[in-house]
Amino acid sequence: MNDAPEHDTPAGAPDSQQPDIPGVIAPAMIEQFEEAVESGDRDFLKRTISELHPADAADLLEHLPLDEFRRAINLVDADLPPEAVAELGEDTRIAALGELSDDGIAAMVENLESDDASFLLNDLSDERRTRILARMPATDRAAIESSLAFDEESAGRLMQRDFVAAPIFWTVGQAIDHMRTVDDDDLPDTFFDIYIVDPGFRLQGAVPVSTLLRSTRETPLKDLMKESRVKLTTGMDQEEVAYLFQQYNLASAPVVDEAGRLTGMITVDDVVDVIQEEAQEDMLALSGVSESGVNQSIFSAVRARVPWLAINLFTAFIASTVVSLFSNVINHFVTLAFLMPVVAGVSGNCGSQSLAVAVRAIAERDMEGSMVMRAIRREAATALINGLLIAWSAALVSLILFHAPVISLVVGMAMTLTFTWAGLIGILAPLTLKRLGQDPAVSSSVFVLTSIDMISFFVFLGLSTLILL
Amino acid sequence: MNDAPEHDTPAGAPDSQQPDIPGVIAPAMIEQFEEAVESGDRDFLKRTISELHPADAADLLEHLPLDEFRRAINLVDADLPPEAVAELGEDTRIAALGELSDDGIAAMVENLESDDASFLLNDLSDERRTRILARMPATDRAAIESSLAFDEESAGRLMQRDFVAAPIFWTVGQAIDHMRTVDDDDLPDTFFDIYIVDPGFRLQGAVPVSTLLRSTRETPLKDLMKESRVKLTTGMDQEEVAYLFQQYNLASAPVVDEAGRLTGMITVDDVVDVIQEEAQEDMLALSGVSESGVNQSIFSAVRARVPWLAINLFTAFIASTVVSLFSNVINHFVTLAFLMPVVAGVSGNCGSQSLAVAVRAIAERDMEGSMVMRAIRREAATALINGLLIAWSAALVSLILFHAPVISLVVGMAMTLTFTWAGLIGILAPLTLKRLGQDPAVSSSVFVLTSIDMISFFVFLGLSTLILL
Repeated sequence: MNDAPEHDTPAGAPDSQQPDIPGVIAPAMIEQFEEAVESGDRDFLKRTISELHPADAADLLEHLPLDEFRRAINLVDADLPPEAVAELGEDTRIAALGELSDDGIAAMVENLESDDASFLLNDLSDERRTRILARMPATDRAAIESSLAFDEESAGRLMQRDFVAAPIFWTVGQAIDHMRTVDDDDLPDTFFDIYIVDPGFRLQGAVPVSTLLRSTRETPLKDLMKESRVKLTTGMDQEEVAYLFQQYNLASAPVVDEAGRLTGMITVDDVVDVIQEEAQEDMLALSGVSESGVNQSIFSAVRARVPWLAINLFTAFIASTVVSLFSNVINHFVTLAFLMPVVAGVSGNCGSQSLAVAVRAIAERDMEGSMVMRAIRREAATALINGLLIAWSAALVSLILFHAPVISLVVGMAMTLTFTWAGLIGILAPLTLKRLGQDPAVSSSVFVLTSIDMISFFVFLGLSTLILL
Repeated sequence: MNDAPEHDTPAGAPDSQQPDIPGVIAPAMIEQFEEAVESGDRDFLKRTISELHPADAADLLEHLPLDEFRRAINLVDADLPPEAVAELGEDTRIAALGELSDDGIAAMVENLESDDASFLLNDLSDERRTRILARMPATDRAAIESSLAFDEESAGRLMQRDFVAAPIFWTVGQAIDHMRTVDDDDLPDTFFDIYIVDPGFRLQGAVPVSTLLRSTRETPLKDLMKESRVKLTTGMDQEEVAYLFQQYNLASAPVVDEAGRLTGMITVDDVVDVIQEEAQEDMLALSGVSESGVNQSIFSAVRARVPWLAINLFTAFIASTVVSLFSNVINHFVTLAFLMPVVAGVSGNCGSQSLAVAVRAIAERDMEGSMVMRAIRREAATALINGLLIAWSAALVSLILFHAPVISLVVGMAMTLTFTWAGLIGILAPLTLKRLGQDPAVSSSVFVLTSIDMISFFVFLGLSTLILL
């Protein structure tokens, strides 16, 4: 999570094994590391890990199978950089914490910034967390406890408590002198703004460090200060925070409590992770996966996917009852059994397209006010046009294949109708879920695809019954 | 794209119409703005736009239907902030450029940083771009022309040419004095690092501005400098750049040419857009949409979606030919026509899950070396376990519905097999595409879903023929 300027070797560094792709560990290095784990070569492991950037060290460790990973953690033990543990994926992080002693974790957590510290402790059982917190100095403990008191996906949890604040009546010179004299531990590793507060510690504005640097010592901070465009509050959802960082191209932003008092700072590197996560979550959710990860166990993968499959099985049976209503017409024209999955499948795809576009637009805040009606109109029109193009191509193909003009006519009519439905439900389902306060990505697919299956079976076989029988 | 510190009013500002959701324009404001467009109230439009942050001004303009949008651009004309045009989505940006005069665009482009300038000019026809460049001062023109010479999604295109460089033999004091005296136009609005170069302008390292600020004037820059962890080169793909920013939590990074000479700087705000875009692109690609946007025209939406539907229609027919091979058994047991879409549909979902997980892991560089085999094993095992759970639930349900134990047995056996296939092809297809140098998200779905349909029809109806007939 944090930048750790003491580590400066690029990925794959020791023995100058430069990787072909920057940021990706060289295979030869992974092999060497694995051998060292097997032979218990503690020194090689410690040296390799300490020479790598924490993010690369975490990647290297995650390349090991789970049992070797545990063994490596045990061997490196107290020399494992806390930042590397914070960079591990969820499953491996929990496994690593399981291997480490309470004292080891307490020492790690003390060396992390407060957001990363509470991030690590959050993975522990309540009991173990209390035990570890009890071993820590009172001030560190208090900072972490108040961070943990915020909701898991809130700005309060995302923020760090180290930042630079200066009273509004100071000059540039006073601010610089203050920063030169203050203890290193009380400042963030790097920072882009200093925040200006009134005597009640209420946030007044910010001065970029680059502006500070270019101004004369006598300049009052008040003259350089810009009022903050965006006010992040501790209770704000992290998705909201990410949106504001993107919208206003922020590198860091102050966080205030309900009384407007400055309490923390969020930096863009933490937000980048949130943006990536949220976008990936939407993609996984649309495909019915609640969670995934590089070192996910099979058990956890099954648990993350089987509920959706079970729901899907249920809805597939419901959709199929529609088919059984029409067994008479299928008995007469077995060609329908052949064409039925074509009609339903391609219409389902039209629905998936519309759904993906809508979920994306909602995530990017492009579905507000008058834009909603415009988007619905566009989706309906697009689906209708695509429906006409695809439906009558399908009709043509089935005419060539089966020489049954009436069946082809039914295919064309049915698909035109189901496409229009697919385009509409693809946007209306996520919009409705959003209005109900639900995540539009999570449960939309099941509504959309089941309804399209049902409608297409019903329309196609119904029209067949009307026209053919 | 860039932070424009001169605009500091939050979204929805004039007349203190604070929006409920920060960063989202208040509906009342949109109405007022629309009325002003209709009545041609130039002053109101100009005032509103100038009071908003460029990103909010762009959002406000995008709320208008396309014809009103064009009218608004015409009314505001030269007073349209260039940064707001750069913040527009692709379709509206092109529409806006169509309304503006060559002189207007030339004036805008001069005021933008070079990355945004080339971003805007890239949307124009070659002829118009040449005409506009000819109206610009020679130095600006040269900067933009060399930016446009890089590939569209490369680091060279993403970088800006304004940055702060200092020779390695300078002290902190010399660097600060230089920054205080240099012309504002030659410095970026904000910057987080200064870059240290040798006499040949080859990059040696970087000093964070916050470190500079905390050091005494006499300190040699050499003592503060950190060698750059990551070397970005002008030809590097933007996806690679985004990955490195994420991996190493960077706020900005220098870009060097092939000879190692410092040529530009990339800041995290531009990278955030890339990360968001790439993740969203994967989601859309998996659903068969090549492009989407808030103000996409119906024509462009049709063009972005119909090719996939056409391919899908073709593959659906191919998959269905499998069904026609077995018309005999369907004729005897019409229940099979009922169960067939259940088997194929739920297996298809299992494949989509596996595919989404694989595409995500590839995007996050979690599919390298030994992790590939582990991931394949996990997907196969997960699919087999889910297959067993779901297949025999399906068998049970069909037993209850149809009282045909042999058919239920066929359902159970067929689904167990097709699930395992689905899990494997869901990961193998994107991995193979990646190995072939293709985008794993773009064409995987069609292979995966078609093959699952074919396999499930074949296995289910084949087993039915063997066992039932």
